[in-house]
Amino acid sequence: MENVIVRYTSRPRLANPVLIEGLPGVGNVGKLAVDHFIKETGAEKLAEIYSKHFPPQVLVGDDGVIRQVNNELYYLKKPCIIMLSGDHQGLTSEGQYDLSDVVLNIAEKFGVKRIFTLGGYGIGKISKRHRVLGAATNHRLVKEMEGYGVVFPKGEPGSGIIGASGLLLGMGMLRGINGVCLMGETSGYFVDPGAAKSMLEILTAILGIKIDLSQLDKKAKSIERISAEMRSLEKQELKRKKEDLGYIG
Amino acid sequence: MENVIVRYTSRPRLANPVLIEGLPGVGNVGKLAVDHFIKETGAEKLAEIYSKHFPPQVLVGDDGVIRQVNNELYYLKKPCIIMLSGDHQGLTSEGQYDLSDVVLNIAEKFGVKRIFTLGGYGIGKISKRHRVLGAATNHRLVKEMEGYGVVFPKGEPGSGIIGASGLLLGMGMLRGINGVCLMGETSGYFVDPGAAKSMLEILTAILGIKIDLSQLDKKAKSIERISAEMRSLEKQELKRKKEDLGYIG
Amino acid sequence: MENVIVRYTSRPRLANPVLIEGLPGVGNVGKLAVDHFIKETGAEKLAEIYSKHFPPQVLVGDDGVIRQVNNELYYLKKPCIIMLSGDHQGLTSEGQYDLSDVVLNIAEKFGVKRIFTLGGYGIGKISKRHRVLGAATNHRLVKEMEGYGVVFPKGEPGSGIIGASGLLLGMGMLRGINGVCLMGETSGYFVDPGAAKSMLEILTAILGIKIDLSQLDKKAKSIERISAEMRSLEKQELKRKKEDLGYIG
Amino acid sequence: MENVIVRYTSRPRLANPVLIEGLPGVGNVGKLAVDHFIKETGAEKLAEIYSKHFPPQVLVGDDGVIRQVNNELYYLKKPCIIMLSGDHQGLTSEGQYDLSDVVLNIAEKFGVKRIFTLGGYGIGKISKRHRVLGAATNHRLVKEMEGYGVVFPKGEPGSGIIGASGLLLGMGMLRGINGVCLMGETSGYFVDPGAAKSMLEILTAILGIKIDLSQLDKKAKSIERISAEMRSLEKQELKRKKEDLGYIG
Repeated sequence: MENVIVRYTSRPRLANPVLIEGLPGVGNVGKLAVDHFIKETGAEKLAEIYSKHFPPQVLVGDDGVIRQVNNELYYLKKPCIIMLSGDHQGLTSEGQYDLSDVVLNIAEKFGVKRIFTLGGYGIGKISKRHRVLGAATNHRLVKEMEGYGVVFPKGEPGSGIIGASGLLLGMGMLRGINGVCLMGETSGYFVDPGAAKSMLEILTAILGIKIDLSQLDKKAKSIERISAEMRSLEKQELKRKKEDLGYIG
Repeated sequence: MENVIVRYTSRPRLANPVLIEGLPGVGNVGKLAVDHFIKETGAEKLAEIYSKHFPPQVLVGDDGVIRQVNNELYYLKKPCIIMLSGDHQGLTSEGQYDLSDVVLNIAEKFGVKRIFTLGGYGIGKISKRHRVLGAATNHRLVKEMEGYGVVFPKGEPGSGIIGASGLLLGMGMLRGINGVCLMGETSGYFVDPGAAKSMLEILTAILGIKIDLSQLDKKAKSIERISAEMRSLEKQELKRKKEDLGYIG
Repeated sequence: MENVIVRYTSRPRLANPVLIEGLPGVGNVGKLAVDHFIKETGAEKLAEIYSKHFPPQVLVGDDGVIRQVNNELYYLKKPCIIMLSGDHQGLTSEGQYDLSDVVLNIAEKFGVKRIFTLGGYGIGKISKRHRVLGAATNHRLVKEMEGYGVVFPKGEPGSGIIGASGLLLGMGMLRGINGVCLMGETSGYFVDPGAAKSMLEILTAILGIKIDLSQLDKKAKSIERISAEMRSLEKQELKRKKEDLGYIG
Repeated sequence: MENVIVRYTSRPRLANPVLIEGLPGVGNVGKLAVDHFIKETGAEKLAEIYSKHFPPQVLVGDDGVIRQVNNELYYLKKPCIIMLSGDHQGLTSEGQYDLSDVVLNIAEKFGVKRIFTLGGYGIGKISKRHRVLGAATNHRLVKEMEGYGVVFPKGEPGSGIIGASGLLLGMGMLRGINGVCLMGETSGYFVDPGAAKSMLEILTAILGIKIDLSQLDKKAKSIERISAEMRSLEKQELKRKKEDLGYIG
């Protein structure tokens, strides 16, 4: 079979849309953001992408009905946006390149003029602030993004950007498409709706639209509560251990 | 060489057969079931499938004669059924997709109208009951299967279905072929003819045929005896250890 | 580049040759045997096989001159034999299949009528005897080989035959070429010229030729001396340890 | 997408150039040498090589601008030289072969008459001397290189040469292109500008040009100072530990 199969579910005319990618990754920040964006904007499905570069797996819904793992494209006419979401990224390096190539083919076909890739930036510790870091395909875009509060700290991310969020921009450049990677700062330990919210605040400002972020806020608070409980339990456990040791003396 | 080679050993006319898959997996439940089904129904060989996605290996029979590892298709005319069995599943994700694609090509060619994939559902502990869980390509089939005693518990299997039992259904859906995955509950520690028997009781009822299941019963009893002996040995060992420790006091 | 590249170094006419394969494997028995066979018979080079399925590596001779890792075919006109030797087997399953496929294409081109694949059969302990086990593509060949002292013990090798020695026969069968795998019993711990010698004694009898095996004998004695020294050192070490423990009491 | 994509950035006429390769490897010796060579000679960019055999990654500059990982070719007209540098080697064996094949296609197109591949030779211990070892495609070249101080010690490197430095020569030989691998002796523990310098001293003599090596010298001194400090710290730590143990007695 072909490495990647695209099945269009509708054939809209789109005028130089922006492409927004949010696939699973660090803290699932990108996927949370784009899935929320799709839901809140009422975007419609454009296409399904199946590939032997995804795991050989079906998912089973609570109703017992199965669904082949895939990536999906959605679209919005005003403002004109294509969104990429999905269950998985490509499993191998070659798979990553193949899948990005197919998405860029679609992007070119619809005349995409700018790409925003959304990801998480794991810092390995819990932090209250949610900086939104950026990386762009040219200096002009860096300046433009700084105007929206995106930060470009020297040396971050030091290891570059791995996966679809990097490749769509890097390989897109070779086709003359410019773009920006927005990275939501996150611990990297849990899924992080708070980081997704901070990122969407900036992204919606850039796109000049407003969407309701309260659901992400609610999810973020719930995660925060769980993690606070975990920290409190750990503290009690530590205290108990110290007391236990006290008996020895 | 081609990734997958199909060698037909006969060219029957088949009228909208059902496809039943049972390849190696958890507890070998699917393979035990389909191999027993092939033997008891006297099904004839339809084709051999060779592939570079299988291990580079030949098997040696007790008579010293070798056989290239493969998958095999069998058929029955009344009721009209194609069966898929084999030594291995594809070793890689890409191999899994390629092999499922070839089987679905054959299924389409013979006008297959429904697919049953058979697998094991490992629960990680020994249990006497052998529930048969299901997952289907649509709601109607879920309802229909519930009528035969197949259960669809919410959240099970949580990780979806991996391998041929998932892919044949998920990728089959894209071709408009519907189907059901039947999963025989098993510990996942041994091959489990008991789970295979429970599954065949339901499958034969669905297909409206009767086959002798006594051989599976016999195998199941033999496995049960062995595992009972192992548990008894473990208990004695534990008791002995406790007595040994008694000497210290 | 192509997966496999064949470069012919001569274009002899060969009348239904026998193909003998001896690539690296357990105890290097097959490679030792076929390399010795090539040297003693003065066989000429037929072709070099290069492939991306081999490691990306060149070897450096004592004179500082490099050589790309490859497989090589040699030929003999009387008796008419093609020999396959080499530095490596294919690194992946797909590589193994691709390489066997190319060798079988060459075999068919020259009208090969029978294949002998040579390998080691590792038993995991040091043994003085060097049984030569067999596996063949049909019953008639099993009987014929038994006449030459090849043994076909029930259940050995239990896991089948992996790699080129298996695939050339298994995939050869699909082209109507018959053959035998000869496996020299070996510990699997060292290269084993003794096992190679036992195998060549039988193989040359089958082929109806005589070759000088004294060099293999010499190598085998040298390996034997080294392993005897190692066992003696281990014994002394064990004795010394027991005496050391004696001081405690 | 294609496995390897070449994008020419200029189309010079080159008269039988020499090809010099220096990709990442042991001690980064080859890459340090060729990158320094490119910088000091003011070579111009010839082409960019992108490939799915590289990691799916973009690098982010201090200015926030991204760049897709790649390999790059540079050229010099007098003396006529093509240089190959890059961020990565191919990740898999197949990738290594594919990439070398593409580079050799380019080499043939420009009439490359000789290849120098530059690498590190890790000896696993820190050494002051920086021998430059060689391996060549024929005896005449071995002799010629010995005249420039390249050494060809028997049995070194015992495991051959792995990666682009080996393949470009080994696969180049099959196209009738000769060449030499120069290996700068290094510990293998750090990047080693000293080894790169020693190698460039010999390489520039061979090519009959002079370049300023003072920057490599400076980098080497800086690395030396750091490693001396580390050794001194380790010594103090060791002394401290011995004194601590003294308290026990």
